[in-house]
Amino acid sequence: MNAPLNPTDPLVLFMPSGKRGRFPVGTPVLDAARQLGVYVESVCGGRATCGRCQIEVQQGSFAKHGIVSSNDHISARGPKEERYDRVRGLPQQRRLSCSALVLGDLVIDVPQDTVINAQVVRKAATDRVIERNSPVQMCYVEVDQPDMHKPLGDLDRLKVVLDTEWGWKDLAVAPHLIPQIQKILRTQLPDQPPLEDGKWGVTAAIHRDMESARPFIIALYPGLKNEAYGIACDIGSTTIAMHLVSLLSGRIVASSGTPNPQIRFGEDLMSRVSYVMMNPDGREAMTTAVREAINTLIGKVCDEGGVSREDIFDCVFVGNPIMHHLFLGIDPTELGQAPFALAVSGALQVWAHDIDIKVNRGARLYMLPCIAGHVGADAAGATLSEGPYRQDRMMLLVDVGTNAEIVLGNSTRVVAASSPTGPAFEGAEISSGQRAAPGAIERVRIDPATLEPKYRVIGVDKWSDEDGFEDESWKTGVTGICGSAIIEVVAEMYLSGIISEDGVIDGSLAARSARIIPNGRTFSYLLREGREGEPRITVTQNDVRAIQLAKAALYAGVKLLMEKQGVEKVDTIRFAGAFGSFIDPKYAMVLGLIPDCDLAEVKAVGNAAGTGALMALLNRDHRREIEQTVKRIEKIETALEPHFQQLFVDAMALPNKVDPFPKLAKVVKLPERKVLEAAEGGRRRGREGRRGRE
Amino acid sequence: MNAPLNPTDPLVLFMPSGKRGRFPVGTPVLDAARQLGVYVESVCGGRATCGRCQIEVQQGSFAKHGIVSSNDHISARGPKEERYDRVRGLPQQRRLSCSALVLGDLVIDVPQDTVINAQVVRKAATDRVIERNSPVQMCYVEVDQPDMHKPLGDLDRLKVVLDTEWGWKDLAVAPHLIPQIQKILRTQLPDQPPLEDGKWGVTAAIHRDMESARPFIIALYPGLKNEAYGIACDIGSTTIAMHLVSLLSGRIVASSGTPNPQIRFGEDLMSRVSYVMMNPDGREAMTTAVREAINTLIGKVCDEGGVSREDIFDCVFVGNPIMHHLFLGIDPTELGQAPFALAVSGALQVWAHDIDIKVNRGARLYMLPCIAGHVGADAAGATLSEGPYRQDRMMLLVDVGTNAEIVLGNSTRVVAASSPTGPAFEGAEISSGQRAAPGAIERVRIDPATLEPKYRVIGVDKWSDEDGFEDESWKTGVTGICGSAIIEVVAEMYLSGIISEDGVIDGSLAARSARIIPNGRTFSYLLREGREGEPRITVTQNDVRAIQLAKAALYAGVKLLMEKQGVEKVDTIRFAGAFGSFIDPKYAMVLGLIPDCDLAEVKAVGNAAGTGALMALLNRDHRREIEQTVKRIEKIETALEPHFQQLFVDAMALPNKVDPFPKLAKVVKLPERKVLEAAEGGRRRGREGRRGRE
Repeated sequence: MNAPLNPTDPLVLFMPSGKRGRFPVGTPVLDAARQLGVYVESVCGGRATCGRCQIEVQQGSFAKHGIVSSNDHISARGPKEERYDRVRGLPQQRRLSCSALVLGDLVIDVPQDTVINAQVVRKAATDRVIERNSPVQMCYVEVDQPDMHKPLGDLDRLKVVLDTEWGWKDLAVAPHLIPQIQKILRTQLPDQPPLEDGKWGVTAAIHRDMESARPFIIALYPGLKNEAYGIACDIGSTTIAMHLVSLLSGRIVASSGTPNPQIRFGEDLMSRVSYVMMNPDGREAMTTAVREAINTLIGKVCDEGGVSREDIFDCVFVGNPIMHHLFLGIDPTELGQAPFALAVSGALQVWAHDIDIKVNRGARLYMLPCIAGHVGADAAGATLSEGPYRQDRMMLLVDVGTNAEIVLGNSTRVVAASSPTGPAFEGAEISSGQRAAPGAIERVRIDPATLEPKYRVIGVDKWSDEDGFEDESWKTGVTGICGSAIIEVVAEMYLSGIISEDGVIDGSLAARSARIIPNGRTFSYLLREGREGEPRITVTQNDVRAIQLAKAALYAGVKLLMEKQGVEKVDTIRFAGAFGSFIDPKYAMVLGLIPDCDLAEVKAVGNAAGTGALMALLNRDHRREIEQTVKRIEKIETALEPHFQQLFVDAMALPNKVDPFPKLAKVVKLPERKVLEAAEGGRRRGREGRRGRE
Repeated sequence: MNAPLNPTDPLVLFMPSGKRGRFPVGTPVLDAARQLGVYVESVCGGRATCGRCQIEVQQGSFAKHGIVSSNDHISARGPKEERYDRVRGLPQQRRLSCSALVLGDLVIDVPQDTVINAQVVRKAATDRVIERNSPVQMCYVEVDQPDMHKPLGDLDRLKVVLDTEWGWKDLAVAPHLIPQIQKILRTQLPDQPPLEDGKWGVTAAIHRDMESARPFIIALYPGLKNEAYGIACDIGSTTIAMHLVSLLSGRIVASSGTPNPQIRFGEDLMSRVSYVMMNPDGREAMTTAVREAINTLIGKVCDEGGVSREDIFDCVFVGNPIMHHLFLGIDPTELGQAPFALAVSGALQVWAHDIDIKVNRGARLYMLPCIAGHVGADAAGATLSEGPYRQDRMMLLVDVGTNAEIVLGNSTRVVAASSPTGPAFEGAEISSGQRAAPGAIERVRIDPATLEPKYRVIGVDKWSDEDGFEDESWKTGVTGICGSAIIEVVAEMYLSGIISEDGVIDGSLAARSARIIPNGRTFSYLLREGREGEPRITVTQNDVRAIQLAKAALYAGVKLLMEKQGVEKVDTIRFAGAFGSFIDPKYAMVLGLIPDCDLAEVKAVGNAAGTGALMALLNRDHRREIEQTVKRIEKIETALEPHFQQLFVDAMALPNKVDPFPKLAKVVKLPERKVLEAAEGGRRRGREGRRGRE
């Protein structure tokens, strides 16, 4: 959207967006940016007091763009900028774009982490640059003091100036502010921008909820209020993760997580639904628990970032459907049984106060839409983050937990499903399984010649075959196998010939290795004998079966979506979630969790759901984007696809062929009865224990 | 707004609106009405189950309109109407307009009090027919049950059908409903409309707040919900008055009033403001008191009307600026001192729950705009009710309380002011004054020949000179003079020559009447000696002075507005409020409260503020109408008009000339010092005790 070109006007190019346009000599750089749709924050309305609109001029000749840019092409620092520099400091190369005027061709750099707030520091989290268009805007104005000749109320005069200076039409006001307006307007703060006679300076926080609804004044402050924060939160069934973000600069101020206290009501999602069904106060108890944990976590990120929770004006939440419902106070019982009806699937906007979230009283809360009864707002967040619909290649997006949420598509078409992997990938239902925590085995290698293993343990720097491992590992102990290592150990067992293609541990190997030990009518692989007070760690035939079932469910779900898309290959794979972060893609492929794909195109993307929430927090266009996308996504209910059972049975074998698509007519090598039992068990567990996600 | 005419189509004329149009044979009468903008309620969406859309066909030849209307020109009763008749009864001449089809020319009568609810009866209150366009609409729909193939949430499917069947776009939902939606949809009621397979029948209450904002689902019921109520309330400083109204039929179900409990914090408005200034919790105590009284009053009208308070979905409130602020929880201190700044002057819309009004949890609350710091939402209500701006004649609208709110204008221009009449008209600051209550003298006549009075007492049927008065009046006592009688007694004293034009009681008359009695350096008129245990009732010189000051303030305010309008005469006068209802316009004119006007054009209109609230409740167009009107009204602040003092002094004399416009240069006959003292006192009392209204 470039401004109309007048070929004699200076050409201004903004980086990194690359937007450009010609503007008459004397145009403030801020105005030029706004006309081009380049996001440059400003709170003070061009008074050169908030310092939010800083830019830099790039010097030099930019032949590609036909621009020679220099400091001579921008007006010299004026008295307002000099004042700002004296009071708050303005680095030499920086300019306030509200005061700096275009004099000639310019290349302007809009620093992506511009400004301010010396106390906050950039934290880990995503490196992605999210274009900002926050629903919250801080608007400093100078309101006329009352005049008996024009008996407009204080609020009404505030609205007038918010219209004339910032263009806000038809503003509504958060009701709790009404009794406070007069006092706020009449409070004089020291060290505030100089005021004309008969004026009061205040900053209004304005929230634009939805395109079609009225903008609201949600908070009001005496003088210049130069801070505004938001939180983006992923409510996982195990962990709640949160970012605290400056809505003005876009920077992540703090990120943290906390266990979901609902675990005490039930480890996995279905047991929580059961708890609600069994206990009259169960729903309320779990809603209260998760909200309290979130409020505590808000306190934690605020402490970490040196921010007051009163300065949080906007919140975005994602979560799987059951977390979504419990957080909103909705009974999730319907989600535990066919037809798995969501109470609400569309995006929701409420006052944070309405659901007891302790931030600014006027803060809003946005919840991403759910895709389907088992594909939640977290999957929508991951979809927004990874954007299969924004690109042409066929992208597979997998988020593995108690169930796997699977999205497959490109700009033409996106399909989604969930598949009941069960909790095996998380170490549950595995004889030596445990959560990823110090003491857990996280990496495994097996020597095909000797069948001897080596492994690494979380919290210990050495491999088990390195000198000093035993000494070092005393501090953590060696207590079990975590989810990522289960994948590895089964894959290594297969690669070393301990288990066959049909998943049977080869008992005949007991003859040449003491690691193969009988266990009833089957055999186990002894990974570690265990020291005094430590468990013996083995991989049993049942463990292998559980992994087979889980991987078959995941693979069958992926395969079903590939069939829907009519493709035999995916171009790129994204593993979202904690499981995805630790798993080695190579072993996932060896084991046949995922279809064949160039390994370089398989990436772990961490908490993509949380990143999606962050995007929706910082840019309301992303809210419309994911709302529209979710409407377009085709939802596949695996339970309704007769073909799914066949795909599931076919996917039991280890590994899937190098041609990763087992023929549908393929003869399964397991005795037929066992396969059917296994498949039946998987489905049953699917119905009972399905639908988790961390 | 007539439909496009096809000259061969039948012509349909709707009464009483007179709207007409041609429609193809077979058009349902309800559709014809809607296309013409004729308001016909319907809850069930044309299923012939709610019975709200009843109409009657007028038989005969309507030559003026060129229509011959007969029952042959409408389809015969079909099976749906027959069923409705069997189940709920449909009078023979009545038809359900959703089922009756246009076959030929028709004159259709839309009964203004159509329908239903046998338990409610029409109560007193206004006779006005208010065209209905309530912000609340009850919409029965049949929602698709969930389908795993289309995993839209329950709320989302509800929205879809509210769009397809009722045309609601972009609906939002009141947050408290979100956790309830699934249960409501799944509740099956007996005796409900027959449902298709796979459908759930529910009724959504939809609220359209503002043109530019999203419509909200504010309540949701299983099956057909065929009732919806609203309240219109005038918060007076003395009395809170309320109507309970069916939003579907428009009928007033109950009307009642209750004393404003804030009286215990201060009799008049300024003493309540003082209470707030003196007591840290004063504002909160008064806010709580008035809200509790309103909640109790809601219970009372609901009991009277046989209505549940849960069925109230909309509320409209008016009140003077201080009542308005205290009700909303706003500190009114600013209104007690120049520049009398309102915190909010524009109309307000909030959830009733937000300000603790106990009705349906999703009910909305609308507060009319205030005109100025002393001309409140009550004056706006009266203006909406009487509509000076809707007609061409010059209308004077006066609402007298502790202050007088004065509106003068016509369709071209409207001006408004308040004038500090003080509490004399209400009987305060009058030696024998009291509230209008049993025992109070309410009518007075004085024989000019004998100077003997006769009077009537509230609660006694006879005049004081009739046989049996003394016996009858024992039950009430004779305790004082109420506001309306104070006007009369002073006017009668003037007409009988007891007081002169300058307001002095003529002491020389003591020679011929024992009713004239000395009282220090002045004289009093003895109205009644008083029996054992009853007070002696006199009118003192100070009483006459107080009335003179009050009437001068009122008259000067009126005169000021007449000068602003450039008129020397008003065409019509409306007295609003309790005082206006009891005052005899003749005496008001004798005394010079109001300018000269044809007595037939002087009307008491009762609680016009409450009627305005009622109009805004029943028709949201009236909300926009008064919002726009208030913006147009020119506010005159008497305190800022140097000329006002002169008008005030000039208006002290009794009566104003028959030419009711005292020349500005007129020589006041009172000794100048006294006049100035009196005027000064009036102004002082104006600042201290001003601004009341009942």
